[in-house]
Amino acid sequence: MEIVLRENERIDDLQFKGLKIIQNTKKFCFGMDAVLLSHFADVRKGDRVVDLGTGTGIIPILLAGRNEVDRVYGIEIQSEMAEMAQRSVKLNHLEDKIKIIEADLKEAPAYLGKGKFDLVICNPPYKKLGSGLLNPHDSKAIARHELLCSLQDVLEAAGKLLVNGGRFAMVHQTDRLVEILYGMREVKLEPKRIRLIHPSAEKPPNLMLIEGVRNGKPHLKWMPSLFVYDRDGNYTEEIKRIYAGEEA
Amino acid sequence: MEIVLRENERIDDLQFKGLKIIQNTKKFCFGMDAVLLSHFADVRKGDRVVDLGTGTGIIPILLAGRNEVDRVYGIEIQSEMAEMAQRSVKLNHLEDKIKIIEADLKEAPAYLGKGKFDLVICNPPYKKLGSGLLNPHDSKAIARHELLCSLQDVLEAAGKLLVNGGRFAMVHQTDRLVEILYGMREVKLEPKRIRLIHPSAEKPPNLMLIEGVRNGKPHLKWMPSLFVYDRDGNYTEEIKRIYAGEEA
Repeated sequence: MEIVLRENERIDDLQFKGLKIIQNTKKFCFGMDAVLLSHFADVRKGDRVVDLGTGTGIIPILLAGRNEVDRVYGIEIQSEMAEMAQRSVKLNHLEDKIKIIEADLKEAPAYLGKGKFDLVICNPPYKKLGSGLLNPHDSKAIARHELLCSLQDVLEAAGKLLVNGGRFAMVHQTDRLVEILYGMREVKLEPKRIRLIHPSAEKPPNLMLIEGVRNGKPHLKWMPSLFVYDRDGNYTEEIKRIYAGEEA
Repeated sequence: MEIVLRENERIDDLQFKGLKIIQNTKKFCFGMDAVLLSHFADVRKGDRVVDLGTGTGIIPILLAGRNEVDRVYGIEIQSEMAEMAQRSVKLNHLEDKIKIIEADLKEAPAYLGKGKFDLVICNPPYKKLGSGLLNPHDSKAIARHELLCSLQDVLEAAGKLLVNGGRFAMVHQTDRLVEILYGMREVKLEPKRIRLIHPSAEKPPNLMLIEGVRNGKPHLKWMPSLFVYDRDGNYTEEIKRIYAGEEA
């Protein structure tokens, strides 16, 4: 099979079930948070899934590579990113399972239909817009800052896409916890499961994995915290297991 | 000095600055959560403090024993508990600093005045009322279940008692996080600082220490998690330091 690689692009081996991904070294590359979110998400056989802001396509590829999902739609607003993600889908022969759509995630419910999905997943930009100047055409800035979509946009889209009882899984910064819980309830995504990520056991959690259920009954289940590094600065055994693709 | 001890009462040495407390072995005795909450609270010199539901009086005694507070009011609805706490205050010669008041905490703002306190602290009953039968005269049931006051009652009283910028510190169960954050915002106690307590590093957090600031600006600061036991089932070094009364 022929796969076109453009300037500054390379193929990375995901070290898991032979999966590969194309990344552009000058643009936003996926991070550990996307891998941890894919592992955290409760994906079930036959699920219809939407990944809001799919970027390189890492989350659809990990989900469709691991699980017997029905279909994963990856929504990406940046044209070049979407085109590159599409080539990664082809590279992995996952065209039957994954559909990359170049669109604004705010338009996803109108485009894909309301109340039709079992799982919506999102690794959104973490940073609120401050007073600093950001280039609205810079792919890294778009992935990290709420330039083209806000937390509220993500939650509203997720709320509309999900069927009753459908699951929403997101990774975000812990310092936005209050806003996230409020926002989720506002769109009837009841927070049901949370897992905190700490750089190490001695440090405060900086990231959180959270699951909401559309019209779920209030009850929040806490998972054990996830520590990234041990005291010696090496990855913990659990992080190694997650990267090796072992199930939770 | 003569201190009366009633049936089933004993004097416990707090192993800290010579402080002692009277407890009744047949009634609710204070737990680790009260000690951790006293340590977590940001107590400042000259503070006017209210402890809602003071029980044995452990929190006022620890605060007044350690800090140069102006005055701590301990509100307790159970007459026998309040009377016992008052004897503990006397036993520690803290009558100038601590005032135990036998009252319903819902009446505290009317009784003590609104917007006059720098710190409100509370170790409330954790459990919602379910369908089980509880004895409304049982001191243990009153301390553990929301028989005589709900979370909302506690938050409303705290909101009214605090001056603008005043601090609210509470310990509670993590599974009630969403309700707690919602409830705090409703009474304008903005969640500002959180610390999770895990039985051990491998286990999920079951308790949380949370600080809110009256009309504070939204920004939640996460502290490192607190682990109670190490892998060998012994108290961690940090728990030992807190019990020894070392400052944070």
